[in-house]
Amino acid sequence: MAEKRDIQIGMFGFGVVGQGLYDVLNSSKGIQANVVRICVKDRSKPRRLSMDHFTFDKNDILNNDSINLVVELIDNADEAFDIVKEAMQRGKHVVSANKKMVAEHFDELVALQHTHQVSFLYEGAACGSIPIIRTLEEYYDNELLNSIQGIFNGTTNYILSKIFSSGQDYHTALKQAQELGFAESNPYWDVHAFDAKFKLCIIAMHSFGLRVNEADIFNYGIPTILPHDVRLAKEKGYKPKLLATGLKIRDKLCLFVMPMLVRHDNLLFNVEDEHNAVLVEGVFSDKQFFQGRGAGSYPTGSAVLSDISATTYHYKYEYKKEGQNSQLQFTNDVLIEIYLRYGSEEVLKQFKFVDIIERHQERHTGFNYVVGVINLKDLMAIPRLRELDAFFALTPECKVNLAN
Amino acid sequence: MAEKRDIQIGMFGFGVVGQGLYDVLNSSKGIQANVVRICVKDRSKPRRLSMDHFTFDKNDILNNDSINLVVELIDNADEAFDIVKEAMQRGKHVVSANKKMVAEHFDELVALQHTHQVSFLYEGAACGSIPIIRTLEEYYDNELLNSIQGIFNGTTNYILSKIFSSGQDYHTALKQAQELGFAESNPYWDVHAFDAKFKLCIIAMHSFGLRVNEADIFNYGIPTILPHDVRLAKEKGYKPKLLATGLKIRDKLCLFVMPMLVRHDNLLFNVEDEHNAVLVEGVFSDKQFFQGRGAGSYPTGSAVLSDISATTYHYKYEYKKEGQNSQLQFTNDVLIEIYLRYGSEEVLKQFKFVDIIERHQERHTGFNYVVGVINLKDLMAIPRLRELDAFFALTPECKVNLAN
Repeated sequence: MAEKRDIQIGMFGFGVVGQGLYDVLNSSKGIQANVVRICVKDRSKPRRLSMDHFTFDKNDILNNDSINLVVELIDNADEAFDIVKEAMQRGKHVVSANKKMVAEHFDELVALQHTHQVSFLYEGAACGSIPIIRTLEEYYDNELLNSIQGIFNGTTNYILSKIFSSGQDYHTALKQAQELGFAESNPYWDVHAFDAKFKLCIIAMHSFGLRVNEADIFNYGIPTILPHDVRLAKEKGYKPKLLATGLKIRDKLCLFVMPMLVRHDNLLFNVEDEHNAVLVEGVFSDKQFFQGRGAGSYPTGSAVLSDISATTYHYKYEYKKEGQNSQLQFTNDVLIEIYLRYGSEEVLKQFKFVDIIERHQERHTGFNYVVGVINLKDLMAIPRLRELDAFFALTPECKVNLAN
Repeated sequence: MAEKRDIQIGMFGFGVVGQGLYDVLNSSKGIQANVVRICVKDRSKPRRLSMDHFTFDKNDILNNDSINLVVELIDNADEAFDIVKEAMQRGKHVVSANKKMVAEHFDELVALQHTHQVSFLYEGAACGSIPIIRTLEEYYDNELLNSIQGIFNGTTNYILSKIFSSGQDYHTALKQAQELGFAESNPYWDVHAFDAKFKLCIIAMHSFGLRVNEADIFNYGIPTILPHDVRLAKEKGYKPKLLATGLKIRDKLCLFVMPMLVRHDNLLFNVEDEHNAVLVEGVFSDKQFFQGRGAGSYPTGSAVLSDISATTYHYKYEYKKEGQNSQLQFTNDVLIEIYLRYGSEEVLKQFKFVDIIERHQERHTGFNYVVGVINLKDLMAIPRLRELDAFFALTPECKVNLAN
């Protein structure tokens, strides 16, 4: 083992996660890490610590040679990238929890790590306190994985849980989630499943070794779900869950995020409220299930702490799966089975079903749905899909098949 | 990163796990490991591979300097220890799945690792395919853990699942488990919870940094469970599960394995059949839940493979928790709340309850039980406890409290 590294931290951001990390760091006995300086933006905000802990100038951290680790915990992905890039260029190790930044700048970030021989760790960017990236990197490094599926977003899972258990409609549940701090004031990235997609993009790299552009991955969220949809799911014994899926079918890899009607025999059925969960299926290890808090101050702080600690023993991700699956190709050309509730025939017509298995129409309530097979590519090609008077979800029976 | 090590394996044992590992190794693309020789005992047994793969003399492996890794997968813990010890003394790295050996010889094994500067890894010894030891070592290395609880034995969980779902009695379910290969022909170590205790002993070391002699840890299994017990549990909405528990209460650590009546809101409630699961509770990360196959050829093979792979990058357990909890002391002097079904007043008298909360007697059926609070030490002191006409389990409400 190489010698332990002494850690001097420069932190960017002191919001929910930053403050959680600060507490976690101060209570942890095993790690000797010193927070030298915290860079924040808002000069008017009252702070828990005395002002000499803070700076408003990023260069106070980046130019400080005694700081060897930058912990990046700000919201803005572009600003975050600039900071992280500069930090690595100056030979500083970086720990980040910014999924959008990691997903969007993956290749550059990996290249920077190699060029500057620094650690760049981001466990906090995916599924809060669940140690999924580390587990995929270290434990499943030689295991052939077939699929990975999970609940990657705590906000939408909280909303869906409330809709299901208390019969609230989407907007009421969202409002409550915001009041309780489980949803942001601008929930767009969460509810339309972009957040889950960024995480899927990162996790797919560590699971299958394939770098997929996040813009090529389909994401569809939950804002159009109606009480009708929930009632039907309940009658059939299903729960609507927003799932991120990565699936290897022969030499193709399929990735998408969309709601699914989940049956009780699926381990994800019982994952409630703001919890996250991941189901990993390997050829040999079979199904492994991981569940934990998906978000929040301390759970994410704890993931970040674990990364900080790993930098003390010079830990780096090795992206070992890359190259192991060199023949693997990403595709959206797959057939999936979905439940589609639609407002009018005009809406229905836009969905080019290959096969319709079930039709239901109620003139008085306006509750119309079909269950059918559709090509994911055709689904993605529908203009203004998120604005349609419709809601769809994978059926519990859905097998994903290559279209060709 | 240090240079990758080239792996030449000498294997001991070619049973269920050994054969599974052999297949997993041959299908894994990322790892270049060569099985040089396999040492087996039974000369008359037909083998899947040609005889030049095998030897009956352990020295053919131990004296072979080209072999740098010994993979030990035999049943007998004493023979295993001799092999593992000798291998380490000769500078060979060792991967083992032998929980009894690891639990019983922990200190010597750790000392051997240090003295001879070799890796000694044993993920396959605890909870099959769940990467629990690695996660505790690497991910929770600085996290303050409050508790760890889980289903550590697939055989008993399979039996309890069948008893619960199909109304079979214990002996029928055990027989079926044996026929299906989920229970060994001599099930003693499994059903009386020794197996789970060995695993708890190992996991406790990696969770809390405290080395506890396995003989000091209480274990009570399931052979005396009766349909009465199961019916009552069902009526109340509980399931009987055999749980291993590690719990930190202030500066004391409490460890035991015994049945518990589990309520549906406990994540362990839904863990069925031969699955294993672990619930880790940290101060900051909150509850983390891990579930996977607890046993079997490929799941355990996959855990062993992951260890083999880790030796290629010189990975060693660091036992980082040791020392972090230097004030922590093991105790059995705790009060627990149990459900006790008993055959006669004579039996009941042996249990020194501190407080009895519920009493139930049925003269015609002979179904008598009490719910009460008892000191674990007093429970352990009952002579021939496992032979009594009685069955007990922790109640779902059980809070473990220090007696003093």
